[in-house]
Amino acid sequence: MSIKEMIQDHPHVGDDYNSELGEAVKHAMYAAAIINSCADACLAEENAGERAECIRRCLDASDACTAFYRMGSRRTGQNVIAIRAMGLATIVACEQCHALCSMHDDRHCKRCTQMCEEVIRDVKAALGRMKTED
Amino acid sequence: MSIKEMIQDHPHVGDDYNSELGEAVKHAMYAAAIINSCADACLAEENAGERAECIRRCLDASDACTAFYRMGSRRTGQNVIAIRAMGLATIVACEQCHALCSMHDDRHCKRCTQMCEEVIRDVKAALGRMKTED
Amino acid sequence: MSIKEMIQDHPHVGDDYNSELGEAVKHAMYAAAIINSCADACLAEENAGERAECIRRCLDASDACTAFYRMGSRRTGQNVIAIRAMGLATIVACEQCHALCSMHDDRHCKRCTQMCEEVIRDVKAALGRMKTED
Amino acid sequence: MSIKEMIQDHPHVGDDYNSELGEAVKHAMYAAAIINSCADACLAEENAGERAECIRRCLDASDACTAFYRMGSRRTGQNVIAIRAMGLATIVACEQCHALCSMHDDRHCKRCTQMCEEVIRDVKAALGRMKTED
Repeated sequence: MSIKEMIQDHPHVGDDYNSELGEAVKHAMYAAAIINSCADACLAEENAGERAECIRRCLDASDACTAFYRMGSRRTGQNVIAIRAMGLATIVACEQCHALCSMHDDRHCKRCTQMCEEVIRDVKAALGRMKTED
Repeated sequence: MSIKEMIQDHPHVGDDYNSELGEAVKHAMYAAAIINSCADACLAEENAGERAECIRRCLDASDACTAFYRMGSRRTGQNVIAIRAMGLATIVACEQCHALCSMHDDRHCKRCTQMCEEVIRDVKAALGRMKTED
Repeated sequence: MSIKEMIQDHPHVGDDYNSELGEAVKHAMYAAAIINSCADACLAEENAGERAECIRRCLDASDACTAFYRMGSRRTGQNVIAIRAMGLATIVACEQCHALCSMHDDRHCKRCTQMCEEVIRDVKAALGRMKTED
Repeated sequence: MSIKEMIQDHPHVGDDYNSELGEAVKHAMYAAAIINSCADACLAEENAGERAECIRRCLDASDACTAFYRMGSRRTGQNVIAIRAMGLATIVACEQCHALCSMHDDRHCKRCTQMCEEVIRDVKAALGRMKTED
């Protein structure tokens, strides 16, 4: 099942799909889950106490990704400036998470780091496309 | 990127992965997004007013799937009886959504209906596996 | 501003308000925030590593409370059996959180423990009222 | 029970509480619930179809408030620039919701409109305080 195909079935979409936003929504959906899972995995590491700020930033980034993918997947009417502002917040939250998580060598932190990079890249691309649409 | 692989990287998991729960978490993650998107698409249909209860049940099912995938993806310590109870709530919420959404012929409702079926099947399988583990 | 008064303004409510459910929704809304805050406060304690399972159960309970208050505050059409099932899951998640959090003497854990007790009590009362309504 | 008192019990807070952020978090917590409830109430109005875009913007604003209050209530380490960016997104999402919801005379829309105003005012005050802290 694909959230991108789902969005294309929306009655207001038609030819005006914005594939960059679809890609960003898909990756933010994955990131909401994967970054949240990384927070939980860091919590189970022996040095969890030293990772407290990293865990906190993971939880923040997961919350931002959740809000972004939910807002970005809606197509009824429009709310472009709110999606843009949430996209910017999501980029910042993922950058902050990435700054700490990328310092760890665990496999879960490596996945989380990569996930943050993908969200940052894709949300930037989606916002770029949205700017030119005005 | 895969939430199932992410869970397997958790320090407490090792050989004790529970692949059924991993599958249920993955589909609940998709469902949280896709059923939420169906609510938004129904809202944009010309007969949105007649779909009010269907939209409401979609929102409820999306909320349940969100809670289940988040709880089910955590592996620090254990919280089996809470995951089970949330799994049961998720099955009921998806059945209630399915009962109304399956009455519509739109492509987004067909996807939503299928998504509900997959979550119900997979969460049941995960709960079955969890019962035999005690 | 009051979520209970808000629910009473819903066009489908009228005389049929169910004050017990309103009370349970209000406390679950508080609990979603307060238990989540306790997880964050435990993470900042010096012995955070020893609290890993407590933190996890706090996060689970917060997620359950979030889903319950959102579903329980909707009044369009009806979805009683889904609210009931989510109420049961919320009780279990809060009991599991309470079992570990009540072992700590910090002020934030004491608040979290009390919050869990209030949600458990109020959701049980709401479910009791819902059963007699059928 | 008070989310503001809860935050003050966090081990990293002490004298450095930031009461403006505490107030913004409290109102965003209420708004997450109340704006979500307004979406549900609009859905139950006879002219729900005409309110589709308003409902969508309510759901967006509720999602933003949820992310903001969760991030803003965490005090482990710091993540100021992410909270700021999320605060800005929350202001925009509430302004967009307010622009449409304030056109309706229903009591639930009046409450939602007032709630948006309070969040916008309080988040702006919190961001103002955070800027002078650097």
